[in-house]
Amino acid sequence: MHEEFTNAERAEVLTQALPYIKRYTGKIVVVKYGGNAMVNDQLRQQVMEDMVLLWLIGVKVVLIHGGGPEISEMMRRMGKEPEFVDGLRVTDRETVDIVQMVLAGKINKTLVNLLEMKGGRAVGLSGMDGRLIEAKQKDARLGYVGEVTRIHIRPVMDLLGSGYIPVVSTLGCDRESNTYNINGDTAAAHIAGALGAERLILMTDIAGILRDRNDPASLIPELTLQEAAELKEQGVVFGGMIPKLDCCVEAIHAGVKNAVIMDGRIPHSILMELLTNEGAGTWIKGGVS
Amino acid sequence: MHEEFTNAERAEVLTQALPYIKRYTGKIVVVKYGGNAMVNDQLRQQVMEDMVLLWLIGVKVVLIHGGGPEISEMMRRMGKEPEFVDGLRVTDRETVDIVQMVLAGKINKTLVNLLEMKGGRAVGLSGMDGRLIEAKQKDARLGYVGEVTRIHIRPVMDLLGSGYIPVVSTLGCDRESNTYNINGDTAAAHIAGALGAERLILMTDIAGILRDRNDPASLIPELTLQEAAELKEQGVVFGGMIPKLDCCVEAIHAGVKNAVIMDGRIPHSILMELLTNEGAGTWIKGGVS
Amino acid sequence: MHEEFTNAERAEVLTQALPYIKRYTGKIVVVKYGGNAMVNDQLRQQVMEDMVLLWLIGVKVVLIHGGGPEISEMMRRMGKEPEFVDGLRVTDRETVDIVQMVLAGKINKTLVNLLEMKGGRAVGLSGMDGRLIEAKQKDARLGYVGEVTRIHIRPVMDLLGSGYIPVVSTLGCDRESNTYNINGDTAAAHIAGALGAERLILMTDIAGILRDRNDPASLIPELTLQEAAELKEQGVVFGGMIPKLDCCVEAIHAGVKNAVIMDGRIPHSILMELLTNEGAGTWIKGGVS
Amino acid sequence: MHEEFTNAERAEVLTQALPYIKRYTGKIVVVKYGGNAMVNDQLRQQVMEDMVLLWLIGVKVVLIHGGGPEISEMMRRMGKEPEFVDGLRVTDRETVDIVQMVLAGKINKTLVNLLEMKGGRAVGLSGMDGRLIEAKQKDARLGYVGEVTRIHIRPVMDLLGSGYIPVVSTLGCDRESNTYNINGDTAAAHIAGALGAERLILMTDIAGILRDRNDPASLIPELTLQEAAELKEQGVVFGGMIPKLDCCVEAIHAGVKNAVIMDGRIPHSILMELLTNEGAGTWIKGGVS
Amino acid sequence: MHEEFTNAERAEVLTQALPYIKRYTGKIVVVKYGGNAMVNDQLRQQVMEDMVLLWLIGVKVVLIHGGGPEISEMMRRMGKEPEFVDGLRVTDRETVDIVQMVLAGKINKTLVNLLEMKGGRAVGLSGMDGRLIEAKQKDARLGYVGEVTRIHIRPVMDLLGSGYIPVVSTLGCDRESNTYNINGDTAAAHIAGALGAERLILMTDIAGILRDRNDPASLIPELTLQEAAELKEQGVVFGGMIPKLDCCVEAIHAGVKNAVIMDGRIPHSILMELLTNEGAGTWIKGGVS
Amino acid sequence: MHEEFTNAERAEVLTQALPYIKRYTGKIVVVKYGGNAMVNDQLRQQVMEDMVLLWLIGVKVVLIHGGGPEISEMMRRMGKEPEFVDGLRVTDRETVDIVQMVLAGKINKTLVNLLEMKGGRAVGLSGMDGRLIEAKQKDARLGYVGEVTRIHIRPVMDLLGSGYIPVVSTLGCDRESNTYNINGDTAAAHIAGALGAERLILMTDIAGILRDRNDPASLIPELTLQEAAELKEQGVVFGGMIPKLDCCVEAIHAGVKNAVIMDGRIPHSILMELLTNEGAGTWIKGGVS
Repeated sequence: MHEEFTNAERAEVLTQALPYIKRYTGKIVVVKYGGNAMVNDQLRQQVMEDMVLLWLIGVKVVLIHGGGPEISEMMRRMGKEPEFVDGLRVTDRETVDIVQMVLAGKINKTLVNLLEMKGGRAVGLSGMDGRLIEAKQKDARLGYVGEVTRIHIRPVMDLLGSGYIPVVSTLGCDRESNTYNINGDTAAAHIAGALGAERLILMTDIAGILRDRNDPASLIPELTLQEAAELKEQGVVFGGMIPKLDCCVEAIHAGVKNAVIMDGRIPHSILMELLTNEGAGTWIKGGVS
Repeated sequence: MHEEFTNAERAEVLTQALPYIKRYTGKIVVVKYGGNAMVNDQLRQQVMEDMVLLWLIGVKVVLIHGGGPEISEMMRRMGKEPEFVDGLRVTDRETVDIVQMVLAGKINKTLVNLLEMKGGRAVGLSGMDGRLIEAKQKDARLGYVGEVTRIHIRPVMDLLGSGYIPVVSTLGCDRESNTYNINGDTAAAHIAGALGAERLILMTDIAGILRDRNDPASLIPELTLQEAAELKEQGVVFGGMIPKLDCCVEAIHAGVKNAVIMDGRIPHSILMELLTNEGAGTWIKGGVS
Repeated sequence: MHEEFTNAERAEVLTQALPYIKRYTGKIVVVKYGGNAMVNDQLRQQVMEDMVLLWLIGVKVVLIHGGGPEISEMMRRMGKEPEFVDGLRVTDRETVDIVQMVLAGKINKTLVNLLEMKGGRAVGLSGMDGRLIEAKQKDARLGYVGEVTRIHIRPVMDLLGSGYIPVVSTLGCDRESNTYNINGDTAAAHIAGALGAERLILMTDIAGILRDRNDPASLIPELTLQEAAELKEQGVVFGGMIPKLDCCVEAIHAGVKNAVIMDGRIPHSILMELLTNEGAGTWIKGGVS
Repeated sequence: MHEEFTNAERAEVLTQALPYIKRYTGKIVVVKYGGNAMVNDQLRQQVMEDMVLLWLIGVKVVLIHGGGPEISEMMRRMGKEPEFVDGLRVTDRETVDIVQMVLAGKINKTLVNLLEMKGGRAVGLSGMDGRLIEAKQKDARLGYVGEVTRIHIRPVMDLLGSGYIPVVSTLGCDRESNTYNINGDTAAAHIAGALGAERLILMTDIAGILRDRNDPASLIPELTLQEAAELKEQGVVFGGMIPKLDCCVEAIHAGVKNAVIMDGRIPHSILMELLTNEGAGTWIKGGVS
Repeated sequence: MHEEFTNAERAEVLTQALPYIKRYTGKIVVVKYGGNAMVNDQLRQQVMEDMVLLWLIGVKVVLIHGGGPEISEMMRRMGKEPEFVDGLRVTDRETVDIVQMVLAGKINKTLVNLLEMKGGRAVGLSGMDGRLIEAKQKDARLGYVGEVTRIHIRPVMDLLGSGYIPVVSTLGCDRESNTYNINGDTAAAHIAGALGAERLILMTDIAGILRDRNDPASLIPELTLQEAAELKEQGVVFGGMIPKLDCCVEAIHAGVKNAVIMDGRIPHSILMELLTNEGAGTWIKGGVS
Repeated sequence: MHEEFTNAERAEVLTQALPYIKRYTGKIVVVKYGGNAMVNDQLRQQVMEDMVLLWLIGVKVVLIHGGGPEISEMMRRMGKEPEFVDGLRVTDRETVDIVQMVLAGKINKTLVNLLEMKGGRAVGLSGMDGRLIEAKQKDARLGYVGEVTRIHIRPVMDLLGSGYIPVVSTLGCDRESNTYNINGDTAAAHIAGALGAERLILMTDIAGILRDRNDPASLIPELTLQEAAELKEQGVVFGGMIPKLDCCVEAIHAGVKNAVIMDGRIPHSILMELLTNEGAGTWIKGGVS
């Protein structure tokens, strides 16, 4: 891609974005950030730029992040071998401490720092801050892996109201001061629902939902809830895509207007999704668009 | 100019605008609109798009307009031949009624209508609304040509505070219920000063201030107040450019941060001025940038 | 009428107005202004004084005006002969431009100016400002004569909230940037309904509704909606009074508490209506007084 | 005085009050109420009507009252003979209890009740409420007669801000929970000063300051501070008028714009003072009018 | 009770109060104050300290007082013998004036003064202020004894909103400017209901409701509405306790969460009730705790 | 210490705290938390209870923490030996990552969790959130050890304004996205100064400043700035106490009213300091108390 534009071209592009800006200004958009877009430095810079641009044009953005690979790396550095059951990390007391340090200490603050450097104003939160995410144990065999029992959305609302980009680490807490590792997509769906967000964006490392899993050209750009249910039943949606689609559906039931499973490998995929006529991934439409 | 861009290119352009958006969001920009940009339909559409785009990204825009050619045309239709003394329209009682009708009735409402159609929210004002522009007679020979004696800026502030784009017709009023025809550039300078605007943009039909009046390539892109005074003294600035430069200088003394004499013939010149690294015209820098 | 009162008498009168002032302070009163009260200079001065007095004692007044005679006069000056079908002005493109100029440019700003001179703070609006009055074509034969399709009441509310007297020209707009000539009484009824006004006052050049059209002493001072319907059926209400009565009835159905068809030929008829025990005209009572 | 007016006359009077209403709306007016206007039932009714009318047209009125005659009467009923030294009531512990009961219990609540009945919204305060008036003993021989040491103006401001007419009994308190009898004029001057009132009105039972004490026609309608000082020096002002004039002068020094020694025996003297071109008494002008 | 604690003990006690403070902060608690706690000076000082402490930790306290003994005493001093019918004071015109003076003038202001001295900020109200308590005659034989017809709660809300402790004398007013003596418990129940208070506390001179009237150890600490009805039916509740229990029940029906008949003879009974695990008296539980 | 109190005793203690509560409600108190009070579990619980109690009674508390021992422990677990120069940790890139994880991830969130469990509402911040602490390198030999260059106090103000207890990790950031390890006492002094705090409390593991370092009974309870300077000069203050005293002095110069070097080993030392007549440590008085 050549990046040299005349200023006339720049102006032209900006005015073409007008109807999209109009549509999203003042609305809440929740982005679940992860995968390649978090690992690759250039993509990470672009996601942060996208977030700050949206924030500047008046979109109320909430950034929610996980951090699996960095957790595993830190565990290994501390001499613990990561172990998984059904794709979920077995999380003993020591592991959940590491999860907390890596998510709330390392990744969260690094993202906050990047957003500030790009010109945004950001504050990081974990599920403990203001008891944002209350959770309970999901399965005794997994230890401190939690499932969401309640969202106290006020800290996110307060930060949005004060003009910040909230950056959320998906840790959960309970009344006994335990900390839990929470699945990021699920937490994002809950938070987006509690906010009545205009859109939930789940960033992934795939193109979206394909009708034929071997044919990238068979991408399904848009689904109703009805169609989503059918595709699941028909086995078209499979593997790791199933929980992502479920998250989108639940978020819509909880009050989110629309959800997107977005290909995070594409540069500026968030901006394209929101500010052009072309999305990158599969869009699940709520009842009221 | 080709207008086909890929969405990736669009996203690229949008993120490149980030630092400029950051600089102007929440700031007040006063645009004195006139000349070719007002006569040519395509340019007019583009100016309105630019205004709405700036408004959407959080700039507090104020649009101030004159309307000389339309006034003359209406006078002729009503059987009155326009007459000028030193470039100023001789304005008898009947003429000032026509001026009022054309500015506050026709042009103002047409511009408001266009801004609304482009997605903005606009309300028109004249100098009588909330006594925005108080004036007195400038010269008995000219009749109802006024000079500004006082600006009551509150109606403009109230509309900005309520989220509208104020569109101002430059008519003046006095305590005896007379109406005056006020020079648009002067009124814009006064209003921008009263607002402590970040920038005053005077749209004209020339390239800006040229060092050599016969060489378009000799455009002076940027002037300090000191340099502006020297150029005037040296006779480099001449004719109709003198009062425009004077307006810019006075606006800066009155509290405006920077002023621009802008080439309104260039498409999207306002956006380019504010959102790219290239201006169209001559920029007069205030002491504190 | 002798106008010399002792100050003791003045004080007496003021205190007798107390219960009426109490009743209307903080309430919204919409006045449709027109006819003789607009043509006769002394009456016009008095109406403006009445409006400012009400505004000062805390009534939220909205002034809505038409301007038929001035439109016809301007048309003739521009060589166009006014033409009417069923009492409605045939309005071609050129005519609607004249309507816009006369209403929004001449009359609106002249009224604003008068209100300011009497000590009020006023801002003029047309149906285009903030898209206040959306309209569509009423009848192809009439050209740009519109009927109201939607009221965006927010600009009126914003101006009331900022402490101004909104003065409204009854022009309509649509999404294709057309302008329409709108019947003033109808527009007033719609706006009063959208505001949930305490009272709608339609100023006319007759005494009110007479039981016997030849006997001025047969004025009906007060009507329920039920009685209004009966009088129409019985043919007691006839001619130009029918649409006025219909406006009142519709306004009440839309949420206005009470409506009055008021004799605008009587000096200070608005004050008398609101601040004494004697109205001038016929009062149509809503269900909840 | 005949009290029958036509409604046209009423309207005429109301509009003539316009410029006066404009001048006082939103301003603070402090009325020290006492003497004949408090004893005579018809005058009392009229003062209450005046207060409510002013309140309705947006004046922020504060009513401050004493109650000497009722205190003496109550003392006698309880078998105590009032005793005075230099015109000040000797106030032992039992007497100050009676003062408190009569002022804060009887008069204050009766006035509040009357204001409410006339349509106002009033709340009574004493100098103990919110520690409004802090005081100390003036003279050991007088017992619980206090002089003002500090005004905590906030309770009055809070009530004005909540839209009430504050009615103040001039009792003082100290840090040892003693209660003091405070001179009403002095307290009014202090409170008006702390409020930066537009006007302080001291109601009395005389015509105002006379140049010749035997000639009612020699009333001095208006005085500068300079002239007031001279009149005192020349002995023109004498007796009980001296402390009243001193109160006015001190109030002006403390921030009140103007003060009036008003003839409270004239019906509706407050309204006449504020809403007509004729005052009743002597007006002491502050430096900035 | 020894009152010497080490500072470590003090700190310990304060932290043990934490859960109770948490429960009541921001909540409205209405205390009907009377009986021994008002007569005994030490108890009175302690009640005032309790009120101020609660106010400081964020409880919105409202103090409502009667004053029977002081009224009788004042009547006797003025040569009138108190007379009662069915426990209610026969109140002629002269008596109601005494009631007003004693309650609103003497007791109210003395309590306000005490609260201020303890560090609170208090303002006194009677039922006339802002027409807080509208009433009508209860029984012609009793004269000016009133029953509540309407509560205008706004003055209490305004004072709470401005950060004051409202102190209320239970006088009533009507539209004819009559004043009524109102039963304090009933007024407190009405006001607590209008406020939707968290708790109504009725201070009395008994231990609470006893199952066996001769056995102080048979105190019933807690009752449901159901149980309260049964106890009344069984005759366990009798005499003066019946109207007190009725007040509690009515208050709960009107929106109060819980009510307490509290033994006011115990030092700091209010603090103990609210900030420890031990109440003093009988607690009537509303449906939703 | 026995912990059984009667409820009467509890009430007594609570009322004795009244004057202290009054003094601090609404004021900002900044606590630098560390040392034994952070390591010992019982003390930690008590500090958290103290914070929540203060928060409940209306004190605006800010908790600032370091975490040296936990950082060293984590470094050792990851195979890095902590190294110090002049008492400052040598902090390479890898070490600063560990510092960030331990402070912002582990300790901060654990403290937030504890405060929430005790009934408070807390949100954690690091120096990166909202760019709270801008810093630059202190000494090239020390690597990422920073000194404060600027405090952006707004995130702390926003959280206090929204009713949270801000918990701050003392990390710094710069414009190149570097992270710095910042001395906790210094950061606390800067933040307290930017807040204009009523009091800065530095918790330590010593008794305070002793006149004779070998005699615990020689504790100096209170110092003026003048005396502090003299003690330093005389060598009475020495070693690690010098920078602590310097922090206090600088904080007072920056706008803090008073500062305390507090013995954090004493249970509930914060409550005792603020809510009783006995402090634990040495109090440095600012000029205006």
